[in-house]
Amino acid sequence: MMIPQIFSTHDEVLAGALVAAINNKTKPPGSLGMLEDLARRIGLIQQTTQPRIVEPALIVFAGDHGVTAEGISAYPQSVTWQMVENFLAGGAAINVFARQNNCRLHIVDAGVNHDFGKRDGLLDRKIAHGTRNFADEAAMTAEQCAQAMQHGADLAGSIAGNVLGFGEMGIGNTTAAAALMHAITQLPAAECVGAGTGLSSEGIRHKETVVQAAVVRHAVSAPLDVLAAFGGFEIAMIVGAMLKAAEQRKVLMIDGFIISSALLVAAKLQPAILDYCVFAHCSDEHGHRQMLAHLGARPVLQMGLRLGEGTGSVLALPMLHAAVNFLLEMATFDSANVSGQNA
Amino acid sequence: MMIPQIFSTHDEVLAGALVAAINNKTKPPGSLGMLEDLARRIGLIQQTTQPRIVEPALIVFAGDHGVTAEGISAYPQSVTWQMVENFLAGGAAINVFARQNNCRLHIVDAGVNHDFGKRDGLLDRKIAHGTRNFADEAAMTAEQCAQAMQHGADLAGSIAGNVLGFGEMGIGNTTAAAALMHAITQLPAAECVGAGTGLSSEGIRHKETVVQAAVVRHAVSAPLDVLAAFGGFEIAMIVGAMLKAAEQRKVLMIDGFIISSALLVAAKLQPAILDYCVFAHCSDEHGHRQMLAHLGARPVLQMGLRLGEGTGSVLALPMLHAAVNFLLEMATFDSANVSGQNA
Repeated sequence: MMIPQIFSTHDEVLAGALVAAINNKTKPPGSLGMLEDLARRIGLIQQTTQPRIVEPALIVFAGDHGVTAEGISAYPQSVTWQMVENFLAGGAAINVFARQNNCRLHIVDAGVNHDFGKRDGLLDRKIAHGTRNFADEAAMTAEQCAQAMQHGADLAGSIAGNVLGFGEMGIGNTTAAAALMHAITQLPAAECVGAGTGLSSEGIRHKETVVQAAVVRHAVSAPLDVLAAFGGFEIAMIVGAMLKAAEQRKVLMIDGFIISSALLVAAKLQPAILDYCVFAHCSDEHGHRQMLAHLGARPVLQMGLRLGEGTGSVLALPMLHAAVNFLLEMATFDSANVSGQNA
Repeated sequence: MMIPQIFSTHDEVLAGALVAAINNKTKPPGSLGMLEDLARRIGLIQQTTQPRIVEPALIVFAGDHGVTAEGISAYPQSVTWQMVENFLAGGAAINVFARQNNCRLHIVDAGVNHDFGKRDGLLDRKIAHGTRNFADEAAMTAEQCAQAMQHGADLAGSIAGNVLGFGEMGIGNTTAAAALMHAITQLPAAECVGAGTGLSSEGIRHKETVVQAAVVRHAVSAPLDVLAAFGGFEIAMIVGAMLKAAEQRKVLMIDGFIISSALLVAAKLQPAILDYCVFAHCSDEHGHRQMLAHLGARPVLQMGLRLGEGTGSVLALPMLHAAVNFLLEMATFDSANVSGQNA
C-alpha cells in the first residue's frame, strides 16, 4: 500500500487554548490528572477545544501463525477459529465489554487457518490459511504484507466514527509480536518474550530461543521487511488500519502487547502517528511495559489484564468519554461564581 | 450511634465456586487481572456467583473546617459552599462523571459554614457552621460526632441500590484527613501531609507543623476520640454511612485521601468492613498511597487525579460493571466449544 503521510498534531495556539479551557474549570489546576492529558490530546487530534467522541469502534483482526509449529503457545492453533466463532456468537470478553461501552465491533478474518464459509458479521479478508513458520522462512511475502496492510487501511477508512481501536486474535501472536519488538527496538530477546496465554518458565525460555534465532536468521531492519518476516496477517492489517485512521485524524486506541507491536512498525514508518494514540492499558504480558517506554507512552489503565482481543481499549473508553465530557460540561470558575486560589 | 457489627464475607465454598466460574470463561486463567479480583469480591459481598450491580449511588458530604484559620489551604473557605452550589447546578466534575456513568448523586450539607436555606436537591444534615479549629480544641464534641455518624448511617440506609460510593467537599479537609491518618497509623506526619488543592512546599511544611502539633496536643487514640478531635462533620457522616452500608452488604466504593481516612476510622471500629470495599483510585495526594498500603488495598485506577468529590469512585464504576458483566455474560469453554490449554 501507499504509506500515507501523517502530520503531527502540534499546534501551539490550540494547545494553549485547551490548557486555558481546562484550567478554567471548577477544580484545582491539574487535579484531573490523566484525564486532562487525554482532553488535550483529543482536542489536538480533532483540532478543537470542543472535542467529541462519535461512534467509537473496534476492529478485531484474527490470523494464524506458522510459528505455532515450534510449540510456543499454551493453546492449540484451533483456538483461533474457535474464538472467532465465539466473537460472532457474542460470548467473548471483547463482546461483553464492547456492549457495555457502546463500542461498535467488527470481526475480520485476516488469515485464519480455517474455512468459515460465508458468515454474517465476519469480514473475509483472508490472505492465506495462516502465515508460514518464521523459524524457517519469512512469515509472509512482501506482496502478502502489502495486501494485508491495504485491507486494513480500506477497513479503517470505511468505518464511521472518530475513535478507532484495534483488537487481535491469533494463537502464537505474542511470539510474532516479541520478534517484531526484538528486531525493531533491539532490546534483548529476554525482555521481549513473555508467557503469552500461559507458558511455563521452560516454555518461555524455548519461545525466547525461537525468537532470538529467527531475528538473527532473517537479519532484516527496514520496518516493512521486519513486518513481513515475523508479522501475522492480523498484525499487518492493523499497521495499515492505524496509518489510515491517523491520516483521517481519528483517535487511535492502543491496547496491549500485540497491538503495540503493530504500532512499533507504524511509528517507524510515520513517527507522527504517535500523536494520534491513546494508550489504553499496560498489559501484564512481559515486555509490554518496556514497549510502552520505548514509545514514550503513559497508559490510562494498569489493571493487570493480558487477554488481548482489544479488551484494554474498550475498557478505557469510559475514560475518553470522561475527558471530553469534563471539557464540554463542567462549569468554569466564572460561570459558577466559585472563588479562585488565594493570592 | 450504635456501631453495627460487620461480618467478614469469607466463604470458602462460594469463593471456590466463583474461581471455578471465572476460570471456565473463554480466556486464559487470570487474564482479566483486577477484573477477576473484583468479580470475586463482589460475588462474596452479594453471596452469589451471579452478582449484579443495581442502582449505584454516591453521596457527597460537604462540611467546613475550623482549622482553615491556620492558613492550611490554597483556597478560601467560601469555596466549600460555592462548590455545593456548583453540585446543585450540575456543573462540577462529579456531576459530569455521575451523569456519564448512571450513578445517582446525593448532596448533603453536613456542616457547611453558610446558610443555604431550603434548596431542592440539598439534604440538610448540618451539625454546625463548620467544625472548631483543632489546632486549639477538638473539632467537634462527642455528641456532634455521634450525631453526624448517625445521620450518615440513616442516609446510607435510606438509599436504594447495592453499590454505594462516598464523596466529599470541604476546604481544609486534607488537613483533617492527614491528622486522622497520622493519629491512627502513627506514620510520620511528613508522610501524611500533602499539597491538597495546591499548596506550595512552604505551605505543606506549615500544614505538617499544624497537623503534628495538633496530634501531640490532643493525644487521643480510640477511633471515635480521634474522629471527634480532627474529623470534619462530612468525614464523621461518611464513617457512619460506610458502617451502615457494609452492614447492608453493599459494595463500598472507596475514593481518594479523605474517603480513605474515614475508612481508617471505620476499619478500626469494624475491621471486616474492608471485605466490602472496592478501592477505586490511587490519588496523587501525598499520603494516599501509604494509606492504601496500610489498608492492604489495591486500587483499580491510578490516573493521577487529586480532585476529591468522589470522582475516583464514579470513574471506576465501569470497571465494576465490567467485572460483573464478564462473569454473567461470557461464554464458557464448553458452551462455546473452545479448546482448553495444551496438556
